[in-house]
Amino acid sequence: MSSERLIYLPLGGAGEIGMNAYVYGYGRPGKERLIVVDLGVAFPDMDTSPGVDLIIADIAWLVERRDRIEAIFVTHAHEDHVGGVAHTWDKLQAPIYARTFTANIARRKMDEYGHPDDAVRIASPWPETIEAGPFKVGFQPISHSIPESSALVIDTPAGRVVHSGDFKVDLTPGVGEPFDPAAFEDIAKDGVKALVCDSTNVFSPDAGRSEATIGPDIEALVASAKGMVVATTFASNVARVKTLAEAGQRAGRSIVLLGRAMKRMVDAAQETGVLADFPGTVSPEAARDIPRENLMLLVTGSQGERRAASAQLARGKYMGLEMQEGDMFLFSSKTIPGNEKGVIRIMNQFSEMGVDVVDDSSGKYHVSGHANRPDLETLHDIIKPQVLIPMHGEHRHLREHVKIADGKGITGVLAVNGMMVDLSGNAPKIAEYIDTGRTYLDGSVQYGAMDGVVRDRIRMALNGHLTVTVIMDDEDEPLGDPWVDVMGLPETGNSRAALVDVVEADLSQWLGRQKAKTLRDDEALNDGLRKAARQSAFGEIGKKPEVTVVVSRLS
Amino acid sequence: MSSERLIYLPLGGAGEIGMNAYVYGYGRPGKERLIVVDLGVAFPDMDTSPGVDLIIADIAWLVERRDRIEAIFVTHAHEDHVGGVAHTWDKLQAPIYARTFTANIARRKMDEYGHPDDAVRIASPWPETIEAGPFKVGFQPISHSIPESSALVIDTPAGRVVHSGDFKVDLTPGVGEPFDPAAFEDIAKDGVKALVCDSTNVFSPDAGRSEATIGPDIEALVASAKGMVVATTFASNVARVKTLAEAGQRAGRSIVLLGRAMKRMVDAAQETGVLADFPGTVSPEAARDIPRENLMLLVTGSQGERRAASAQLARGKYMGLEMQEGDMFLFSSKTIPGNEKGVIRIMNQFSEMGVDVVDDSSGKYHVSGHANRPDLETLHDIIKPQVLIPMHGEHRHLREHVKIADGKGITGVLAVNGMMVDLSGNAPKIAEYIDTGRTYLDGSVQYGAMDGVVRDRIRMALNGHLTVTVIMDDEDEPLGDPWVDVMGLPETGNSRAALVDVVEADLSQWLGRQKAKTLRDDEALNDGLRKAARQSAFGEIGKKPEVTVVVSRLS
Repeated sequence: MSSERLIYLPLGGAGEIGMNAYVYGYGRPGKERLIVVDLGVAFPDMDTSPGVDLIIADIAWLVERRDRIEAIFVTHAHEDHVGGVAHTWDKLQAPIYARTFTANIARRKMDEYGHPDDAVRIASPWPETIEAGPFKVGFQPISHSIPESSALVIDTPAGRVVHSGDFKVDLTPGVGEPFDPAAFEDIAKDGVKALVCDSTNVFSPDAGRSEATIGPDIEALVASAKGMVVATTFASNVARVKTLAEAGQRAGRSIVLLGRAMKRMVDAAQETGVLADFPGTVSPEAARDIPRENLMLLVTGSQGERRAASAQLARGKYMGLEMQEGDMFLFSSKTIPGNEKGVIRIMNQFSEMGVDVVDDSSGKYHVSGHANRPDLETLHDIIKPQVLIPMHGEHRHLREHVKIADGKGITGVLAVNGMMVDLSGNAPKIAEYIDTGRTYLDGSVQYGAMDGVVRDRIRMALNGHLTVTVIMDDEDEPLGDPWVDVMGLPETGNSRAALVDVVEADLSQWLGRQKAKTLRDDEALNDGLRKAARQSAFGEIGKKPEVTVVVSRLS
Repeated sequence: MSSERLIYLPLGGAGEIGMNAYVYGYGRPGKERLIVVDLGVAFPDMDTSPGVDLIIADIAWLVERRDRIEAIFVTHAHEDHVGGVAHTWDKLQAPIYARTFTANIARRKMDEYGHPDDAVRIASPWPETIEAGPFKVGFQPISHSIPESSALVIDTPAGRVVHSGDFKVDLTPGVGEPFDPAAFEDIAKDGVKALVCDSTNVFSPDAGRSEATIGPDIEALVASAKGMVVATTFASNVARVKTLAEAGQRAGRSIVLLGRAMKRMVDAAQETGVLADFPGTVSPEAARDIPRENLMLLVTGSQGERRAASAQLARGKYMGLEMQEGDMFLFSSKTIPGNEKGVIRIMNQFSEMGVDVVDDSSGKYHVSGHANRPDLETLHDIIKPQVLIPMHGEHRHLREHVKIADGKGITGVLAVNGMMVDLSGNAPKIAEYIDTGRTYLDGSVQYGAMDGVVRDRIRMALNGHLTVTVIMDDEDEPLGDPWVDVMGLPETGNSRAALVDVVEADLSQWLGRQKAKTLRDDEALNDGLRKAARQSAFGEIGKKPEVTVVVSRLS
């Protein structure tokens, strides 16, 4: 069957952290049957994607091959792995497989957008497998910062692939299954063609610590607190939420969950049985009648998100609850690069209230959910793959991970989004480069990152906006003077006259100098007015705004 | 003289890191003679100040009291201390005092804006002093990450104030004067009324390390490199630039300075004699003929700034030089919060080229220029002030610093920008709250941060912009249909028709429903069209754009 091949194609997550979307295919070139692993989102920012709500991988390549997609497999319920399933459902409509907890979260997303939630099917853990065309796929439990994270065991006619998903090596994760070296040894015993492996923490040189190691420190911290205690972490980190709640309970505090995601995740974890023995909680309403020194709030917003519970508490009351001098706020979390300013903002707001803020700088109140370098090597050494393909990492992470593979005599392949790897032969090779990118979800519309929409927004943010309106009479002569409006520009500039007056005067003069031929030519008139307006503004305020020209002809 | 008072008023730098601007006054209330310490800038970002070039403190309070300003004293040549002198000169016109190197940098700024550079006067170090009305001010050398940083000894009829400036406790700073405990002991021996003290690193629990400690590690790193070595640091960190250059020289490499600031700072340091024995450099042109393994480039852009040399090298050629596989790029610097994404971007660009990137995560190639908590305590313990006023820090830093003072039995005062402290009596008190804020320098214009300009830009960036043009005939009836233009919005929405067509049709219908009274009323027409356009867009694309309405009347 040398004419058939096994391919790997990352569409998201390879060359970035977030927005995971990986494709595997098997079959004759151009006729491969396909499976998708994860369909996640990335989050926008003002620098590159202002006004955008969510970012998903560009799935145009998949949409063109929709009839060849057997199934979608979701490794775990983090947004950067599951967040895109509802936004791509209309276009892909392939069955979605996930384990119970992940499926619960995925179904809530499908429901929210009015999609059939039975498209999400529940997978049992390995050694059970799901047949999907030429693939047999099993969900092998692996420890991570969310319950039921799974590595995928993907059997193909060309051999076995292990797709690690996000993971850490944690033998005592608190909630969810521990890392099970024996299970992975068993999976690897007949040889593994390729290990496709998480790279997030490849630059962390020391072995990671278990979730269980931070419980005592958190407990001591909460026990020492005098006022109300408020703690934030990712709501999906159910083990941490439980650790925090238990610390509160042991200190004799009533537990309050604040923020929609916090309640949703605890509900999902309890519904699906992954979370047992969670301390009883009280409602925010009931909490108002409890002395503050007997309260512990677990809140969303560890990344400083403006609408989350933490930011609302930093600005004032939230659900009738309010922080005061002598209270404590604990970040049981790490700040993701890019979110520093938002987190620092709420730290300072709490400081102004006299609240003591504790963060993870001591290393005592947070551990990472990803495998550090020695932990990655632990998995490499158990799986002993022929080929190692790093995924879920920026270019620098993937490159470093390939170097580790090379050092072990494993063939490392650096494949970023859009690079299709042919894994069939003895040596993997890049088979094709696919045009990929990012799709922006903005309001109710999806469009491409390179469509120019966001570029124009960024330009208006940097340069302001100026509108020029000119009316041409039925003899193609200007009727009255041009009219100028501005937005996002100072009212006056160097001459101390109103900016709009100065630009209007300059445009009037410019129009007066034009010949009939130009005045009859819409394009020339638009172009000329735009340039004249930009030049005039530049002289006045030292910058050239974005310009909309509207020429109305009465003829 | 109980009717006279000594006041301290931060206008910038207290409640933030950056934009330092502090006022001291002495005299009868409302008649105090004033001095200003530092006039720095802060840097804009897309989240809060898109399109802005620089941020300076709002000096309206000072401008109203210009005739009472005796002098401006600049502690050192970092942008957040000296960057505002030229931008405020027109309004303040008070003599500017600084030590030689700082004055050199300040004069370059004055020159650039066409201001008289003899406004900048050179101060000799303490025990020499400058008389400024009721103040006598001396510049006491103190170690920091720039040459000739100084604490100010400010003698007043109400006692001595020590203003630390930015500092670290470094006995072997390489370039510039070491921290001199004996000098400070001497300054403090007759008692110090108040220590106004840098707070930047108050949360760093361990004593800071000397600049001298990193030389050997940098030297070993450069010696181990095979290809070209490129290193970046703040150009103003002349000691570091020298350490890097010497490491290159010892490894037999020719040194190239790249980036305007790098050359300007080395020039200034050599001109003023603070930098001696700097290795000879070669020009970028000459470097092209030198084998790359014999080159070491020292470049600007440690914070990932898009126009700096590092970012240009990350994108391709710069000054004819280009990085290649096997080269090394060293960040001998720390990433300032908020700059992470820019720094990570160039790290990944270098990774794509096969360049090995080394950053400060090992702690071996960078040390901070600010006093850590134990170092702050060293200064407290030497100065033994009656009052400690933390400055140069966010609210959380100031608050933590006050706690340290309280723990030592020193009266700590938490004063953020705009809080005037009366230091005259036995207990300091807040005398007044001044309206302060930030002034944006944008192109050639300065305006207030709260003037709405930037708010409108942010709104356009988040929501896009839509222009509505309507012409009303001489009977106040619409002449033809409304015309719609968009910028920063998708071309089509839910109905798959062009967005502008949908909105135009909706606006036509809306106009058709209006009574003559509304059609004659400009404000009602504007308002109604704006709302109708936003509603129409919302139905189509799920978001409400910013709208400019232009109604032209032929009547």
